Amino acid sequence: MAKQRVLTGITTTGTPHLGNYVGAIRPAIAASRDETLDSFFFLADYHALIKCHDPDMVRQSTKEIAATWLALGLDTDKALFYRQSDIPEIPELTWILNCNAAKGLMNRAHAYKAAVQANEEAGEDPDHAITMGLFSYPVLMAADILMFNAHRIPVGRDQIQHVEMARDIAARFNHNFRDVFTLPEAVVDDSVAVLQGLDGRKMSKSYNNTIPLFLAEKPLRKHINKIKTNLLEPGEPKDPDTSTVFQMWAAFADESETARMREEFANGIAWGEAKKQLFELVNSELAEARERYDQLMEDPGYIENELQKGAERAREYSAPLMRSVRDAVGISTIR
Amino acid sequence: MAKQRVLTGITTTGTPHLGNYVGAIRPAIAASRDETLDSFFFLADYHALIKCHDPDMVRQSTKEIAATWLALGLDTDKALFYRQSDIPEIPELTWILNCNAAKGLMNRAHAYKAAVQANEEAGEDPDHAITMGLFSYPVLMAADILMFNAHRIPVGRDQIQHVEMARDIAARFNHNFRDVFTLPEAVVDDSVAVLQGLDGRKMSKSYNNTIPLFLAEKPLRKHINKIKTNLLEPGEPKDPDTSTVFQMWAAFADESETARMREEFANGIAWGEAKKQLFELVNSELAEARERYDQLMEDPGYIENELQKGAERAREYSAPLMRSVRDAVGISTIR
Repeated sequence: MAKQRVLTGITTTGTPHLGNYVGAIRPAIAASRDETLDSFFFLADYHALIKCHDPDMVRQSTKEIAATWLALGLDTDKALFYRQSDIPEIPELTWILNCNAAKGLMNRAHAYKAAVQANEEAGEDPDHAITMGLFSYPVLMAADILMFNAHRIPVGRDQIQHVEMARDIAARFNHNFRDVFTLPEAVVDDSVAVLQGLDGRKMSKSYNNTIPLFLAEKPLRKHINKIKTNLLEPGEPKDPDTSTVFQMWAAFADESETARMREEFANGIAWGEAKKQLFELVNSELAEARERYDQLMEDPGYIENELQKGAERAREYSAPLMRSVRDAVGISTIR
Repeated sequence: MAKQRVLTGITTTGTPHLGNYVGAIRPAIAASRDETLDSFFFLADYHALIKCHDPDMVRQSTKEIAATWLALGLDTDKALFYRQSDIPEIPELTWILNCNAAKGLMNRAHAYKAAVQANEEAGEDPDHAITMGLFSYPVLMAADILMFNAHRIPVGRDQIQHVEMARDIAARFNHNFRDVFTLPEAVVDDSVAVLQGLDGRKMSKSYNNTIPLFLAEKPLRKHINKIKTNLLEPGEPKDPDTSTVFQMWAAFADESETARMREEFANGIAWGEAKKQLFELVNSELAEARERYDQLMEDPGYIENELQKGAERAREYSAPLMRSVRDAVGISTIR
């Protein structure tokens, strides 16, 4: 049996933070070492354009994210690592899928519906400030997935619907023409940690509560010291299960170290001491990769080469698939 | 001053008929000889996919339309003649324009609104059977136009709105990023004849009343004989202005020949005789091109080469424009 293909896109807006690392990057890189899988990772810069009209931010974020995955040891001879915009077959497939995707399907997409609801609550026209990019984003995502006949798409719960749409569009195309596409499945791993941010809410760029992944030591320590805690004094027992410090500790420590810190909390460890230990732990896991990251950020040509290599490998899949798609719909040389 | 660029797309569904010839192809080829203009003609096969899920029909129509334009003497060293699907920059630009096109704009497109109205009248869901292809077709059309910074788009009245949308999207992009796109203008030429079909309604594939352009002599004569007339006998004066036979005559004859036929109608020419003369006139205009057409249809390699040549020339425009667009939005090599 052919290897299962697992595909993950990373939108190139913003700087990777500890939440991305713990919740997405670390498990993805670990999974890419699984010999029973073929992993596809791509920098989703066409998706970035939906929300971001700042070219410098898109450029910078693309660079930072690529450097991050490389610094963390993604094996680009094994996993396919490419930039979406290097694969001209993707926008082409997007158009062809448009012709096989019901508009009604898009009307029901959560992200679109949420934007409409926000508009209605604000007394605006329902489609106020909604672009065709936002509205048809699930079709682009379907093209990302179907282009490589990916079997499994690891997603958060909020993205399951989009994978189901890709599945629906693929089935419709296969029915209208012939069996070209694999029907993909969403895979939700609830065991993956959702990291809390400085303020105790989910760590997220939109809450402005993140700790950037590759902060230098000093600012990393500073950020960790800013994590919100309660006013309990040293010696007073503390509840680990409501503590962001402990939650972050557990995301980086092994089982026995986690158990030890739980004890320390019961024994009334001072917040300052807990944060000091947390810094040491996080820093030790990241220090080496950070050094590589800093080197890579100084060596853009190397990053670009890696992405070019990835694009070349990815096009070994996308070019023949696109030929089948074109032939199926009637686009071919005159004969 | 740079030459004005005039751009025309031809959707590759169906076989060219006399109505297409008189209303679109003949004037377009004449205009392409105007030294003050740069003409762009393209086979709009991505558009064909919106309405047509029959690959053989798309293929056949693409071949027939390409052969038609070549047979009629389009000078492909002067005019650019290419197949939309040979320009990978077009679907890419379509996506980027999506991110700059308001969904509200598409909600107001006539073709979409007409489809919704038909659904509502049939008691269906408003978006019943409407694909994302139909809904976002104006964005693809904007990409077709803006890709070549075309100034003038000759259209029928029903297409003016789409050119205005392209203009709107271009202005929005230029405002969001920088001045990349020329704002196109719709050009409506009301002097161009709209040919009537066999039944007296506008000649149109959807009415099934067409006369295919390159019918062989015998079937051409047969078709012309089938044009609906009234029951007036030979010798009875006939009204040229309500006659499809006369209308078609006027579309092929020069002024003096038209005046002569008007006289003949007043003098009570027999329908059979009028149709005979009409056949001779149409046939004499088309006979030579028909021969070339038949040869071309037997020589698919030649047609393909012409389209490849056109694509190569077209990409001399589209590739650098796409580089500017990418740079403007933040898609570029890592640096």
